[in-house]
Amino acid sequence: MTALNDQATGQLTDEEIFSAHEGGKLGVSVRTSLADSRALSIAYTPGVAQVSSAIARDAALVKDYTWTNRLVAVVSDGTAVLGLGDIGPRASLPVMEGKAALFKAFGDLDAIPLVLDTTDVDEIVETLVRLRPSFGAVNLEDVAAPRCFELEERLIEALDCPVMHDDQHGTAIVVLAALRGAANVLARELTGLRVVVSGAGAAGVACADILVAAGIADVTVLDSKGIVGSGRTDLNPVKTRLAATTNPTGRTGGLDEALTGADVFVGVSSAKVEEASLALMAPDGIVFALSNPDPEVHPDIARRHAAVVATGRSDFPNQINNVLAFPGIFAGALNAGARRITQRMKLAAADAIASVAADELAAERIVPSALDPRVAPAVADAVARAAEREPAAG
Amino acid sequence: MTALNDQATGQLTDEEIFSAHEGGKLGVSVRTSLADSRALSIAYTPGVAQVSSAIARDAALVKDYTWTNRLVAVVSDGTAVLGLGDIGPRASLPVMEGKAALFKAFGDLDAIPLVLDTTDVDEIVETLVRLRPSFGAVNLEDVAAPRCFELEERLIEALDCPVMHDDQHGTAIVVLAALRGAANVLARELTGLRVVVSGAGAAGVACADILVAAGIADVTVLDSKGIVGSGRTDLNPVKTRLAATTNPTGRTGGLDEALTGADVFVGVSSAKVEEASLALMAPDGIVFALSNPDPEVHPDIARRHAAVVATGRSDFPNQINNVLAFPGIFAGALNAGARRITQRMKLAAADAIASVAADELAAERIVPSALDPRVAPAVADAVARAAEREPAAG
Repeated sequence: MTALNDQATGQLTDEEIFSAHEGGKLGVSVRTSLADSRALSIAYTPGVAQVSSAIARDAALVKDYTWTNRLVAVVSDGTAVLGLGDIGPRASLPVMEGKAALFKAFGDLDAIPLVLDTTDVDEIVETLVRLRPSFGAVNLEDVAAPRCFELEERLIEALDCPVMHDDQHGTAIVVLAALRGAANVLARELTGLRVVVSGAGAAGVACADILVAAGIADVTVLDSKGIVGSGRTDLNPVKTRLAATTNPTGRTGGLDEALTGADVFVGVSSAKVEEASLALMAPDGIVFALSNPDPEVHPDIARRHAAVVATGRSDFPNQINNVLAFPGIFAGALNAGARRITQRMKLAAADAIASVAADELAAERIVPSALDPRVAPAVADAVARAAEREPAAG
Repeated sequence: MTALNDQATGQLTDEEIFSAHEGGKLGVSVRTSLADSRALSIAYTPGVAQVSSAIARDAALVKDYTWTNRLVAVVSDGTAVLGLGDIGPRASLPVMEGKAALFKAFGDLDAIPLVLDTTDVDEIVETLVRLRPSFGAVNLEDVAAPRCFELEERLIEALDCPVMHDDQHGTAIVVLAALRGAANVLARELTGLRVVVSGAGAAGVACADILVAAGIADVTVLDSKGIVGSGRTDLNPVKTRLAATTNPTGRTGGLDEALTGADVFVGVSSAKVEEASLALMAPDGIVFALSNPDPEVHPDIARRHAAVVATGRSDFPNQINNVLAFPGIFAGALNAGARRITQRMKLAAADAIASVAADELAAERIVPSALDPRVAPAVADAVARAAEREPAAG
């Protein structure tokens, strides 16, 4: 895959990467004047006391008069950073700053990295509960599976604000949006597609869940040991749940057994796929090879056996990029005052992403570009409307 | 004091105060381009992986390639906010956002409010230890005494970065700077002045400490029960220490006993001072009535009995404002890579503040204006040089 790497980053020199990171990528900006003594008296003492007193009387005003209702904490312990793995909280910071920058650029939300020097779920939950008054939402990022599942669940219970592990749900939402696009291009019913998800980590589990929630009847998941099914005795609790909700026909075996006759391959692990395995799929198939930076199979090879091919990379057509989802999802949830990001809100987000590109659909354009400025507002709007319709979100 | 309040805030309407706070006073800004796909590849994947990998290999690089070395966490539990008292973390947020804005405007530092839903010292320390990779320094703010003393001490031990409780040391540093200015105006030796500090809370204790450290031999502190001295049996550990380091002549009694023949009154509690008490001071005295928004004595009255009068307010001459100190102190400490903010660094900060105004000294201009742009760079420079000379800071 060295050639692929060169193709993607060949134009990027170390010098320009490091110089773009000099001093970090984030800053704080001041939205009010501090230019003279009068302005200082308004923004700080004595004027600020009026605002603090008002919030002390009515805590709900904190949303109107502080930045917290627009502030997403990008939280990580640095245990599963990009393809780099467990590099720790300090080394994860450039990624978290990048994520915060994307929140600003695409969702007009403020976001700050909060990286933690602990990987203990209890301690992370406890820390964020204590800090709860400081932010409006939590974007969990780059936390290793299976700990990420418990951590997200515990945080959702403990915090009265939107919490989402983007590596799970951001990916899943964009996969569903792209699959809608691909099904439309191929004039297939989404729900009738037989889907294979390779990988049962953060992204794989969430992909399987959202595809099932979207009405796809036949989803099969593989982990490193093979097809996840009720016959397996080595499954963790999350995979045990998957075994009950997926693989309706009780398939067993490995990737070849799963892919035989399948319509869709979704790769969200680094496990490579041989061309011979793809050849087992049904005609007019769909291949999403999303491992980054090295896709499970080179798109040129995949195209020999599939009608639609997507990757996670910007240098091939059909990039499945989380940035299509997370800025709008958090903006919509915060705008609606939602306490939860429910499955229905995620489904609405996927629909919104797919709708933006609906008129321009083609085999090499199944999702909007990651830079398409129409996407985040459309997603925010759809998510807010879904939240308002749903008691569980409030 | 209603008249005084009106004088200060009469021009500020509720409407303009609340409108200046709409949506909060802070935002996040992005310092790198995200305009096109190539820029995204540099600031986020795949480019950012190079930077994260470099930090994983050499943790010291985190200072160069993230915002943390410029980032001050403004930490509060909301227990002693302005004159409002224990209004809690949410209601404290407008003050903390204001503080962060001042860090940006005067020190060119980024700062984020981290307000905590706990007042337990162990829990606050534990929380900040876990978050340590996220910031470069801690400005403690508006934590009630005497808990603030233990909390600051514990944080200094636990964190390998600059920590300062501004209500203690920011005030103390500017008081010392102003006292230098006043002594110069009056052609008196600073160290020969007999000083009375009214108040043994956060500011009072730190004022007494820095005045003693600056070489003033006769400092007397009062709390609500009277003069702090070794004969008292009701002292907490901090006041017991004060009893040993101040009040060298063993005075006992109340404010009148302390003020008789004193050169300097420093008021840092809300306790009012009668004119008759000020009349007991030595001629050509100095009165700092720093309680906000209501000074211990109206400056017009104080001027009848003192040659130099200062308050904490912007609408009278000689404003003792912490903003003269904290932006430069943190900037200097971070620039020098200091792990501690030592007493020598604080003394250097006070000297630097006093030097900026040295050529313009007058009885009504003993300190620079809070808006003087020369102050923070001068303080930062002096603090960094002091840090570099001192092993304890490193």
